[in-house]
Amino acid sequence: MPSYTAPVRDTQFVIDHVIGLGNYSNLPGFANASSDLIEAILGEGGRFASEVLAPLNRVGDEEGCTRHPDGSVTTPTGFKDAYKQFCDGGWTTLSAPEEFGGQGLPHVVSTAVSEYVLSANQAFEMYHGLTAGAIASILTKGTDEQKATYVPQMVSGKWTGTMNLTEPHCGTDLGLIKSKAEPNADGSYAISGTKIFISSGEHDLSDNIIHLVLAKIAGAPDSVKGISLFIVPKFMVNPDGSLGARNALSCGSIEHKMGIHGNSTCVMNYDGATGYLVGEPEKGLAAMFIMMNAARLGVGLQGLAQGEVAYQNAVAYAKDRRQGRALVPDQRDPDAKADTLFVHPDVRRMLMEARAFNEAARAFILWGALQVDLSHQAGTEEERQMADDLISLLTPVIKGYLTDRGFEVTVIAQQVFGGHGYIAEWGMEQFVRDARIAQIYEGTNGVQAMDLVGRKLAQNSGRAVRAFFELVGRDIAEAKTAGDPAGLAESLEKALGHLQGATMWLAQNGMANPNNVGAAAYPYMQLMGAVSLGWMWLKMAAASSGLKDQPSEDRAFHEAKLITARFYAERELAGAGALRRKVEAGADSVMALSVEAF
Amino acid sequence: MPSYTAPVRDTQFVIDHVIGLGNYSNLPGFANASSDLIEAILGEGGRFASEVLAPLNRVGDEEGCTRHPDGSVTTPTGFKDAYKQFCDGGWTTLSAPEEFGGQGLPHVVSTAVSEYVLSANQAFEMYHGLTAGAIASILTKGTDEQKATYVPQMVSGKWTGTMNLTEPHCGTDLGLIKSKAEPNADGSYAISGTKIFISSGEHDLSDNIIHLVLAKIAGAPDSVKGISLFIVPKFMVNPDGSLGARNALSCGSIEHKMGIHGNSTCVMNYDGATGYLVGEPEKGLAAMFIMMNAARLGVGLQGLAQGEVAYQNAVAYAKDRRQGRALVPDQRDPDAKADTLFVHPDVRRMLMEARAFNEAARAFILWGALQVDLSHQAGTEEERQMADDLISLLTPVIKGYLTDRGFEVTVIAQQVFGGHGYIAEWGMEQFVRDARIAQIYEGTNGVQAMDLVGRKLAQNSGRAVRAFFELVGRDIAEAKTAGDPAGLAESLEKALGHLQGATMWLAQNGMANPNNVGAAAYPYMQLMGAVSLGWMWLKMAAASSGLKDQPSEDRAFHEAKLITARFYAERELAGAGALRRKVEAGADSVMALSVEAF
Repeated sequence: MPSYTAPVRDTQFVIDHVIGLGNYSNLPGFANASSDLIEAILGEGGRFASEVLAPLNRVGDEEGCTRHPDGSVTTPTGFKDAYKQFCDGGWTTLSAPEEFGGQGLPHVVSTAVSEYVLSANQAFEMYHGLTAGAIASILTKGTDEQKATYVPQMVSGKWTGTMNLTEPHCGTDLGLIKSKAEPNADGSYAISGTKIFISSGEHDLSDNIIHLVLAKIAGAPDSVKGISLFIVPKFMVNPDGSLGARNALSCGSIEHKMGIHGNSTCVMNYDGATGYLVGEPEKGLAAMFIMMNAARLGVGLQGLAQGEVAYQNAVAYAKDRRQGRALVPDQRDPDAKADTLFVHPDVRRMLMEARAFNEAARAFILWGALQVDLSHQAGTEEERQMADDLISLLTPVIKGYLTDRGFEVTVIAQQVFGGHGYIAEWGMEQFVRDARIAQIYEGTNGVQAMDLVGRKLAQNSGRAVRAFFELVGRDIAEAKTAGDPAGLAESLEKALGHLQGATMWLAQNGMANPNNVGAAAYPYMQLMGAVSLGWMWLKMAAASSGLKDQPSEDRAFHEAKLITARFYAERELAGAGALRRKVEAGADSVMALSVEAF
Repeated sequence: MPSYTAPVRDTQFVIDHVIGLGNYSNLPGFANASSDLIEAILGEGGRFASEVLAPLNRVGDEEGCTRHPDGSVTTPTGFKDAYKQFCDGGWTTLSAPEEFGGQGLPHVVSTAVSEYVLSANQAFEMYHGLTAGAIASILTKGTDEQKATYVPQMVSGKWTGTMNLTEPHCGTDLGLIKSKAEPNADGSYAISGTKIFISSGEHDLSDNIIHLVLAKIAGAPDSVKGISLFIVPKFMVNPDGSLGARNALSCGSIEHKMGIHGNSTCVMNYDGATGYLVGEPEKGLAAMFIMMNAARLGVGLQGLAQGEVAYQNAVAYAKDRRQGRALVPDQRDPDAKADTLFVHPDVRRMLMEARAFNEAARAFILWGALQVDLSHQAGTEEERQMADDLISLLTPVIKGYLTDRGFEVTVIAQQVFGGHGYIAEWGMEQFVRDARIAQIYEGTNGVQAMDLVGRKLAQNSGRAVRAFFELVGRDIAEAKTAGDPAGLAESLEKALGHLQGATMWLAQNGMANPNNVGAAAYPYMQLMGAVSLGWMWLKMAAASSGLKDQPSEDRAFHEAKLITARFYAERELAGAGALRRKVEAGADSVMALSVEAF
């Protein structure tokens, strides 16, 4: 069975030395987050993840969820008890606002802990994970009464939340949804329709489930402009906060999926269920995107989390398994008939690829979480806007690139096991199956790429991407001044040049033929992802280079960072030029075939 | 549920116009293979695959195989009947020698049909697929008596064969095997040991199962030099050919795997089972490699086969599913609220990537099958050796590169389905799970890469790779002379230059540090794979360019080839330089970390 140890030291390195959370302690919300407190939270969170949640990961995969004839759903053995411990430990409350029962800590902290929870048990995390997005929507768009009624219970984990967007005939194209909302006399709405792929749609972990449902109010435009967002609770909530009658909604079935079996993915039927409008009518898409953007960052984190746990187990196997001999005779173990897998350069290559991704992805996503915090808390409007620009630009990259590469890392880690990787009991194939969903849900990665090139690049005349280029360019210049300790700055500079060139090409060729934008979207996203992780390696190398000679520091830890940074430069950034050429190849050969030719 | 239609027309195009099978009709074995006969075989084989085998693919996945308390194993519902039809139809006999009941057709023909069978039902094909390798071993190394006793029954499909190599503690490193062979008084051996991951190790499809088992004869060197190969039948065979007593071997358990559930992957226990030496004692590795090389080509074919069926279903879904609007207004369907997925360039990109791989992979593997035929049947020793050199060089590329890319194509095809791709009933996730094993078994793809750079490149002072470069170079020169109709020659020439440069680098840097070879192996294999498929696109483009204006030809078919060739040049060959840079990055950053740093 696989094991998991939270990479607390690496998280701490990123928080302290790469994103420098301590620099922001003057800001509201950051003051609580002393280095000691963070250390304690990471340690405890990591322990909870590895000791309580990781052992349930295979149980969840094997048992799955069970829907009973009455429509109720039970989660796998142990999930309910673990969820209670999860709530009792306060793990649902970390970065929620203090006025609603949260701890008011930065998103950086909750993101770091979420990585551990996701590595240990992705299916479990999703029961709470979507709740955070639902809370964000209600806090931003809901009435004070809605906030008071729902948010404290959702923060504590007593109630969970869901997102109900997809219908059988539409997912990406939400303008097509058919779910209807008929106004009731009391100001509420009667919601009717069928929603599919609803993660955590029905289960036995929480007392109530707060569904956030997209529907069209009778008479609204039959397009995205006619969509409204509704709170539709499983149990009605009485004025005193106690639970009332069962609402007219039910789980029609549970999907049989490739992975994340421990999470109940439901078909939800709404049969005139009572719902409450969130925000203004026909502005549901904006309210939904608040929830969606939070969810997308969480999904990007899933890519890293599955990559990390898969990598850890591949390392353990490579240390244990003896097979073949080192190519270099004096690297052979004279006391054994075979050497460990570690002597084989191609096994090392796989482990280094995994490691080079995981560590940079961790830095990138914690950097992203800091931008979320700064977009709300930074001292000036300019700083808040800059942070908002950056996270808005890079959310599709975090979601799309990190889940693509994270999936690939699970495949690589499975490969290290040879035939044993294909056998269920080793657990490696579950990581692959679980990781796969992250490339698909909350907007497929193709949709992310289109969001990046079709919307985010051009917003505010390209202000965000210019800021991104400037930040990366400045760090490259600094690294070169410092003698480029990891031998990375030049490769990154070239890659950044390719990204800038590709951006220019898009600006020049997108207007003439919008299909050029569509055909370029995916390699462009990959290029921006590779540059972003390269940037993180530059930051990590700079930090480690400065720290490695300090007597209080672990020299080997920092030297490993510098070596891995160089590996990234030599192996991952090498493909930047090819990605640019794909961007600049345009739409011609992509679109030339007639549909009949397929 | 997914569907499958055998791509008969494309196979025929490759056979007639790309590898030009008709040019060899003067050779023994090829004379039987008239164009009409091949057309009939492909048509019938395709129909059998799509009508009989494809409907059992999900059944096999869902039911899996069942081991009963007595050690017997039953296959999924319908497999037994389908297998009987498969044998009755003569599908096991296509390229087997006529003197043993085969039809004596070229391997090209049986390979083409195997693709269809594998696309329809990989788990089913494996019951017969491994038999072909076992037959090849016995025919090459066995005694006349062994050939007469076993081969006709295996050719007819009445008996099936297995390969027993792996043990719990070793797979790649066969020198470590512990299975023992004690000589019996009658010249047979008593075989004892445990073998794992034995595909089709026990089942109810055939009357007997002929296990080919690696073991060490008592007193033999405890290394690869001490390995011998044995025939160990499930039922003893009486002198009259009838079945006798049960041999002392049994299936201890069935593995629970990520995919190919319809195939029984067994732990096999040998408890003093009677076995018969194949070939000379302690020369088992050579005998095993005859079987293994045949199996590796079959596994490469699996990559293509899963890629093809996944692609077909993605195309069907993209034609049917309406979601979103074309970016270019006049490409929008005025009669619908949304356009089909085909209007979206990023969906097209995915389908084109899949198609560009599948069609070139088909050409490459049929070209490879032709080399297998020519290595036995060509008119001169020089031609036979040339063919043997080429297929020996490229077997690891066919196995490693085609299974890697084929797996990626299944992932791409699943992605086209969005959320539905993750749901079992659509069948797309099964293609991903089934395709995954092909990267692992018969030598992981890392082992293939090492076989390529560590053994094949240097054999006979590089004679094979020089011949390969010359063939590709000659076709490039011809294409340039012909005006490069698909705009591919220049890109391929560059890519070939990178491959030649990388080869030179290996020759110069491998001796000084063997780890440079190991660290370079994987990107080198990828580079050779990309060039090989590019070469096939060059051949296909040349053929289509010549045919497209002929009145008897379907112009659209050939224009699609030319467009897809251009897509391959722009998108796939673009990465050749990056792969070369990875090769030339050497082993330093790959090997620099201490094991403790992981």
